[in-house]
Amino acid sequence: MDYAMESLRLHERWGGKIEVAVKAPLRTEEDLSLAYTPGVAQPCLEIRRDPDRSYDLTLRHNLCAVITDGSAVLGLGNIGPEAGMPVMEGKCALFKTFGGVDAIPLCVRTQDVDEFVRTVELLAGSFGGINLEDISAPRCFEIERKLKAVCDIPIFHDDQHGTAVVTLAGLLNALKVTGKDKSVRIVTSGAGAAGVAIVKLLLSAGFSNIVMCDREGAICKGCGDMSWIKKEMAEVTNLDHRKGSLADMLAGADVFIGISAPNLVTADMVRTMNKDAILFACANPTPEIYPEEARAGGAAVIATGRSDFPNQINNVLAFPGIFRGAFDVRAGDINEEMKMAAALALADLVSEEELGPEHIIPKAFDPRVAPAVAKAVAEAARRSGAARL
Amino acid sequence: MDYAMESLRLHERWGGKIEVAVKAPLRTEEDLSLAYTPGVAQPCLEIRRDPDRSYDLTLRHNLCAVITDGSAVLGLGNIGPEAGMPVMEGKCALFKTFGGVDAIPLCVRTQDVDEFVRTVELLAGSFGGINLEDISAPRCFEIERKLKAVCDIPIFHDDQHGTAVVTLAGLLNALKVTGKDKSVRIVTSGAGAAGVAIVKLLLSAGFSNIVMCDREGAICKGCGDMSWIKKEMAEVTNLDHRKGSLADMLAGADVFIGISAPNLVTADMVRTMNKDAILFACANPTPEIYPEEARAGGAAVIATGRSDFPNQINNVLAFPGIFRGAFDVRAGDINEEMKMAAALALADLVSEEELGPEHIIPKAFDPRVAPAVAKAVAEAARRSGAARL
Repeated sequence: MDYAMESLRLHERWGGKIEVAVKAPLRTEEDLSLAYTPGVAQPCLEIRRDPDRSYDLTLRHNLCAVITDGSAVLGLGNIGPEAGMPVMEGKCALFKTFGGVDAIPLCVRTQDVDEFVRTVELLAGSFGGINLEDISAPRCFEIERKLKAVCDIPIFHDDQHGTAVVTLAGLLNALKVTGKDKSVRIVTSGAGAAGVAIVKLLLSAGFSNIVMCDREGAICKGCGDMSWIKKEMAEVTNLDHRKGSLADMLAGADVFIGISAPNLVTADMVRTMNKDAILFACANPTPEIYPEEARAGGAAVIATGRSDFPNQINNVLAFPGIFRGAFDVRAGDINEEMKMAAALALADLVSEEELGPEHIIPKAFDPRVAPAVAKAVAEAARRSGAARL
Repeated sequence: MDYAMESLRLHERWGGKIEVAVKAPLRTEEDLSLAYTPGVAQPCLEIRRDPDRSYDLTLRHNLCAVITDGSAVLGLGNIGPEAGMPVMEGKCALFKTFGGVDAIPLCVRTQDVDEFVRTVELLAGSFGGINLEDISAPRCFEIERKLKAVCDIPIFHDDQHGTAVVTLAGLLNALKVTGKDKSVRIVTSGAGAAGVAIVKLLLSAGFSNIVMCDREGAICKGCGDMSWIKKEMAEVTNLDHRKGSLADMLAGADVFIGISAPNLVTADMVRTMNKDAILFACANPTPEIYPEEARAGGAAVIATGRSDFPNQINNVLAFPGIFRGAFDVRAGDINEEMKMAAALALADLVSEEELGPEHIIPKAFDPRVAPAVAKAVAEAARRSGAARL
């Protein structure tokens, strides 16, 4: 199927992938007096007395904003706020379908970090949580950090943390398949939103032998001009200060994680990796290396971002359950413990019998996924003090 | 019924009066590939090429934001953004139920005019129109004017224009009932959002003999310290420069329109008005004068804001149809001609047989209302050049 043209045709037919539905009955004068004036004055006064009551008396407890500035939409780049909206709407549809989360798409017509942050900050009273989406790196890191500092609701940049959670889950199971442990040598390619977040979560999870690569090769402390985020990452990765190309780094590595660009890795490069190499080639739609070629190079486990190969690293495995869990306990934050719990819950859903080179992660439509992730996230929120219920 | 307590109980049970519903099917991998990645890239690129395509390919064509800063919620005053949200949600429920318009409630945590304007401006690419709500006067006038200048979508402050449209419709029919014409002497009470907008629309409609009163009495050119909006209104009303109290002004008047405070008008004051006086006592929930007392003073036609008396001036008669009509022709503005057309359409819905002192305006649940208003508004948009379809 020509997905592009068929999708365009369907988008025209749908005229929006979500809509607003009414829960309160509005059939009689009395209904009107209760859902609207004069009755509605009472819930208003109740929230004025205690703003937290907005969670009980409006949709806020279950409402997430999906917000972009259109600066890094899919792999299409900086296509602008309105052009990002089909993705935001799609995300909202996934939020509801998979997690029962009501989500609203918003685009902001500024790419100034502080103005974007201020806009979202001013809207925070309308929502129970904020999902940032398709914002370019390194701006996205600054935006997320600043928003977390000023907002009392969860701020989650799915391109970072959703991807990181699913990648960690897959990696944990790939280690079981190959009999390796957290001492594995990991090489990543890509220092964008996902690349940075994956490495940070891997470090949190106890992986310590990681070298990040960008277009120039290994990111290392003191190696040339780097953005502030790469400098930050160079402090905590590549502790041996190795220099060289991605191919140089892959020699002797156990794990490759790519969230970068098509066709960067060859079968020959895979052959230089350690035995039973694990490859996550998640560039979309064309991976860093196709599964067949990676296998030809001797790889033991291969994951991609695509649904037409085994082991799809798909964010839909994470964000609906993560927000479901956070909302269920009215978490004030989605913290490291909650993301870690989500990854472990995802990994655990693959039973010992199912586990294998072509099955390290649940499928997107596995109905157990969101509830299991939500439960684990809610428990982690309670343990870590983020829960407010 | 104790509406306050019953409404509070229901709001707790509802946990939100609206929700998000999903229109695009998401049951299979293929569904996902069409509604989301990779297929969704194509509609994104289409919108990047022509931002107006966002109206065809997302919900934008039917999506209205209902936005407040919480500075003047119902008659409760400045209760803050979150506390205004039960009203915003109720409005969204009415938008969908009566006009088929998808509407999203937002509150903004600033009461600085320019910051509020900038916030809404930056969000305008997400919506087909903006409905401002419960913003205090005179800030609301400045906010609306500035937003109209910077946004390419309709900006409508319902507390102003919805009320004005329904009031004009009712007044036109009240004139028919009493055999009066547009030369009537009109006295209004209240110079807030609704009071100002009503007078402006009456002037547009050809009424010219209007005196506005505030707490101090008649507003007249050069009479003491006044806000900029009152100064502006003093230029176009009270052309005889009359000074005095509301009671003074009512003597010899044909029409009283109150959108002010409870119990300001007495039967004795009505007795000083001209024969067959028309009274719109729309302070809520307690009117400027109760119908019974007004009748005792000799009033011929009495309207209030309440559903338990005849002739309810209810904004729900206007805003759903106005936005429906504006959206149907993708209007870039909701202009004077469109508001006027809405008022005339509303007035015309009351047939000659139905017309009478207790029936000058259709009932809120009359199913003919929104379609008739929408049709008239769309036609007026075409005539006035606001339509883009």
